[in-house]
Amino acid sequence: MIFEEKTISSEYKYKGKILNLRVDKVTAPKGEATREIVEHNGGVGLLAITDEGKIVMVRQYRYAAGEAALEIPAGKLEEGENPMEAAIRELKEETGYSAGKVQFLFSYYNSIGYSGELMHTYLFTDLIPGEQHFDDDEAIEVEEYTPDEMVEMVRDGRIFDGKTIVAAYFLKDYFREHPELTANK
Amino acid sequence: MIFEEKTISSEYKYKGKILNLRVDKVTAPKGEATREIVEHNGGVGLLAITDEGKIVMVRQYRYAAGEAALEIPAGKLEEGENPMEAAIRELKEETGYSAGKVQFLFSYYNSIGYSGELMHTYLFTDLIPGEQHFDDDEAIEVEEYTPDEMVEMVRDGRIFDGKTIVAAYFLKDYFREHPELTANK
Repeated sequence: MIFEEKTISSEYKYKGKILNLRVDKVTAPKGEATREIVEHNGGVGLLAITDEGKIVMVRQYRYAAGEAALEIPAGKLEEGENPMEAAIRELKEETGYSAGKVQFLFSYYNSIGYSGELMHTYLFTDLIPGEQHFDDDEAIEVEEYTPDEMVEMVRDGRIFDGKTIVAAYFLKDYFREHPELTANK
Repeated sequence: MIFEEKTISSEYKYKGKILNLRVDKVTAPKGEATREIVEHNGGVGLLAITDEGKIVMVRQYRYAAGEAALEIPAGKLEEGENPMEAAIRELKEETGYSAGKVQFLFSYYNSIGYSGELMHTYLFTDLIPGEQHFDDDEAIEVEEYTPDEMVEMVRDGRIFDGKTIVAAYFLKDYFREHPELTANK
């Protein structure tokens, strides 16, 4: 039987634009413990496969990392926003692509130790190219790679973003199970 | 050329036990932008393969998720701590296993949009069983699964932790490339 922590008290230390910070006292197996919790509306991660068997990726400066990062397209949810609708919108805004087909894959906690942020992951196929429309404070370059190239970049450190590593190994497996995605390319 | 954001000003909103929260003003392509940044010492994620070809996993209550989660073993780094030494220590504490062989795989940002937390990932083989020694406020059950079972649990939602999804798909690929890991079991 797993011990379940119950909230004793809860205090906001910060309420911001993309996240809040809360410090809670909770019941613990031996008395009380403190939990520092980030509240975040969650996000979407987009695995978009072109007709050429390439994965649509974006390169942008990431202030938290202090450098530009190569990632799968992603976006934050507004409060109450439907994740699949957000995913379709972000794909269009960041990459210009619309998709004929979208499939939910899975949702996961990015940092389950201290954050309630869930990342909802979608697979897009039957892509139709178009124009990017990104926000004012975004500057994004679109690049396309095969899953094998992505895994190679995970191994040598050129990819260092968690959701993109999930995507790289998921897609390597997915392409193996769907050889028609790379056939005749 | 990717636009690079420069810090204009920086203010701590919270300094805590496992994380700090900082709000920075930065240069943006069209003027200024605000960045809410979580500071965290980073962590280690452990992929430990038994001689039976199973992956050592842990189940524990996760307050941020509001439920118990099945995960690969993991731990937080103390400031300045060597990640590989922390990984070896956490494996022993959480699961009781010592390992004959440890290999660095990759490091990645869990939440690159707002957090500097890096997750350093290690592969352990030649495991030697022993006793768990976890912290007072941890209550952890050890379970063991094959990579195929892990991927099945990602698909049906029983696994919902990011580092564990990275592990599931990485290990499915790794076992395919190292068939001796499952041979004769």
